[in-house]
Amino acid sequence: MERIVQKYGGSSVSTTEKIEAIAENIIATKGENTQMLVVVSAMGDTTDDYIGLAKKLSDDPDKRELDVLMSTGEMISASLLAISLNEQGQKAVSYNAYQLDIRTNGIHGKSQIKDIDVSKIEKKLEDGSIVIVTGFQGIDEIGDITTLGRGGSDTSAVALAVKLDARCEIYTDVDGIYSVDPRKYSDAHKLDEIEYEEMLELASSGAQVMHSRSIELAQKYGIELYVGRTLGKEKGTYIRGNSKMNIEGKVITGIATSDEDSAITLKEFKAENISGLFEDISVKGINVDMISQTAPIDGVVNVSFTIPKDEVRLIKGIIDKYIEAKNVVVDDEITKFSLVGLGMRDTYGVASKVFKIFNENDIALKMITTSEIRITCAINSKDKMTAIQKVAKEFDL
Amino acid sequence: MERIVQKYGGSSVSTTEKIEAIAENIIATKGENTQMLVVVSAMGDTTDDYIGLAKKLSDDPDKRELDVLMSTGEMISASLLAISLNEQGQKAVSYNAYQLDIRTNGIHGKSQIKDIDVSKIEKKLEDGSIVIVTGFQGIDEIGDITTLGRGGSDTSAVALAVKLDARCEIYTDVDGIYSVDPRKYSDAHKLDEIEYEEMLELASSGAQVMHSRSIELAQKYGIELYVGRTLGKEKGTYIRGNSKMNIEGKVITGIATSDEDSAITLKEFKAENISGLFEDISVKGINVDMISQTAPIDGVVNVSFTIPKDEVRLIKGIIDKYIEAKNVVVDDEITKFSLVGLGMRDTYGVASKVFKIFNENDIALKMITTSEIRITCAINSKDKMTAIQKVAKEFDL
Repeated sequence: MERIVQKYGGSSVSTTEKIEAIAENIIATKGENTQMLVVVSAMGDTTDDYIGLAKKLSDDPDKRELDVLMSTGEMISASLLAISLNEQGQKAVSYNAYQLDIRTNGIHGKSQIKDIDVSKIEKKLEDGSIVIVTGFQGIDEIGDITTLGRGGSDTSAVALAVKLDARCEIYTDVDGIYSVDPRKYSDAHKLDEIEYEEMLELASSGAQVMHSRSIELAQKYGIELYVGRTLGKEKGTYIRGNSKMNIEGKVITGIATSDEDSAITLKEFKAENISGLFEDISVKGINVDMISQTAPIDGVVNVSFTIPKDEVRLIKGIIDKYIEAKNVVVDDEITKFSLVGLGMRDTYGVASKVFKIFNENDIALKMITTSEIRITCAINSKDKMTAIQKVAKEFDL
Repeated sequence: MERIVQKYGGSSVSTTEKIEAIAENIIATKGENTQMLVVVSAMGDTTDDYIGLAKKLSDDPDKRELDVLMSTGEMISASLLAISLNEQGQKAVSYNAYQLDIRTNGIHGKSQIKDIDVSKIEKKLEDGSIVIVTGFQGIDEIGDITTLGRGGSDTSAVALAVKLDARCEIYTDVDGIYSVDPRKYSDAHKLDEIEYEEMLELASSGAQVMHSRSIELAQKYGIELYVGRTLGKEKGTYIRGNSKMNIEGKVITGIATSDEDSAITLKEFKAENISGLFEDISVKGINVDMISQTAPIDGVVNVSFTIPKDEVRLIKGIIDKYIEAKNVVVDDEITKFSLVGLGMRDTYGVASKVFKIFNENDIALKMITTSEIRITCAINSKDKMTAIQKVAKEFDL
């Protein structure tokens, strides 16, 4: 008996008509010899609508309660899909985070899944029911609802596939993984397959097709992921280890960009306070991504770092302890531009090629970080499209 | 330390502006020396909207899943109210049916509460937090969501007041309990107080201000209920035992009408099958209300009974076993017209007065049932307004 976990994103369940069509497709896929579990996101823009409601009541809504609010979106789509499946003669049952004890580490808004009790699921799968599970949500030790962060339903699906030893298919509103976002570079081509590590770097660098923690989890447990268009005819992309890609000799697999961060620059900052500053920031749970620092001169340095735009407000209270406001520069108009490719491991000169392109096109490089298979540059947002076009062309993406 | 349980209905929390105003009022009411728990219904027409969505997918949506869907409405309003209270500087936390183990008898769509674990609530009340609880919902023994039926949030509030030994205030969009629905009889007057039994008969006869099970529960545990307009200045109605009302010598306290039922008449029905028929009906969980039957002639009878309109479809399958379709008459155009008053216990002739009024006004009486303090007549719906006007005038309501 084969087992499949399918995940449908918000745009795939945005209307009852779409839910009905998905239900038909799920029943056809299940057939006689498959056990199926389906993870759903909230319908369409529901989550954003909820955040909008909460923001009418508070600029900074209580995080515990915001999680309660957002978690209802998946309960709605899950129950509607179960209703449609039942109506079409297929036994189906929906479960939420409580019912499966989807236990998380308890950080509101960005929890990580620790474990899932699949005993109820196993029983239902055995009796031929299709099991629908609310994505994006878990509960903490005292039973409070904790959500997994935007896109977290992917991670819910992979975690369930791991626990159930199932194949995992992620259905969305794009055909698969592209080397570059096709809305930004029309010559971009779809990848037939991509390695976990590359996908991970792309996802964490701003490619929004997949929740990056879902890739980590899939890699850790060796679960092959398939990403494709909901009800689409065209083949999507497989995410797996040891693909044949390197044989083709490509250095760069893809480009991702992100406009989600702001750059903070602290001028004439006391070098001795650097570690205290970043400890304070991490205690607040703020995600610092890129950091660059000048060498100390007379005990002071210039230090720049990027953080998510919506956490700028939080960080100001921390910085004030260390430095006068006149020495703080916040730049909201930056883009993180990342090149990812396993081939970088064995190839030199990728960075210098990028610098050359930037130089020729008057693109100012503000910060740079690298990993073994990724180069990320912070540039001015106005240069984003030029950078994508020129670099994608150079590396034949 | 005084304890108050307040319940706010759907129209009272239909917008974020209203939620904000309620939050202010709750904080003002709480002050220094009160512990407050607030039960909320779903915002505005949310529940109906959900049912509409489900009906697009199925004429008869799976009851378990419909309960999941509907239960999200109260989670949304509860979290938004908690967000607003927190924003206004008042610690507040929302809980749903899982978190409090609001355990029910497990009948989807019309469950009864068996018990509630208030340990989490007690802790939060002690530390000065306001506790918000989702009304209308519970969970069964295996953790499935079960709702309490329309208006069930009243019952949630009373059950919590019982467990917490608190006063209970029900806030809604009317000023209190009226002798007759003021939309139907403009001279109707608001009651300062009403006895449990009378309110119970009114509520179960169609007066939609209160969920009838909430009254039963309040009566059983001697909890005094207050019903009034949300943020209203005018005093509402107290529902209690041993009110002073009888001293005033009124026979009839109020009139209620209900258009929710259909009358089924079975002609030339075999008398020996009567008990089997009603057993089959009760096994299906269909609520039969009024029953009238002619004396048997040659072993056959005419039997009429009323059931909720939306269960007519269900009952047809049962009836078909016993009788040919040509002998079944379904009348959807009936109104149940009820007079309620503790004074009826000691006063004769109420029924005959009603018959006289009906007769004088050409109102056909189709069925009648009575309890010690209530008379209910099934009449044609077209005669409803006439019956209300004439009877209300006669009994000075």
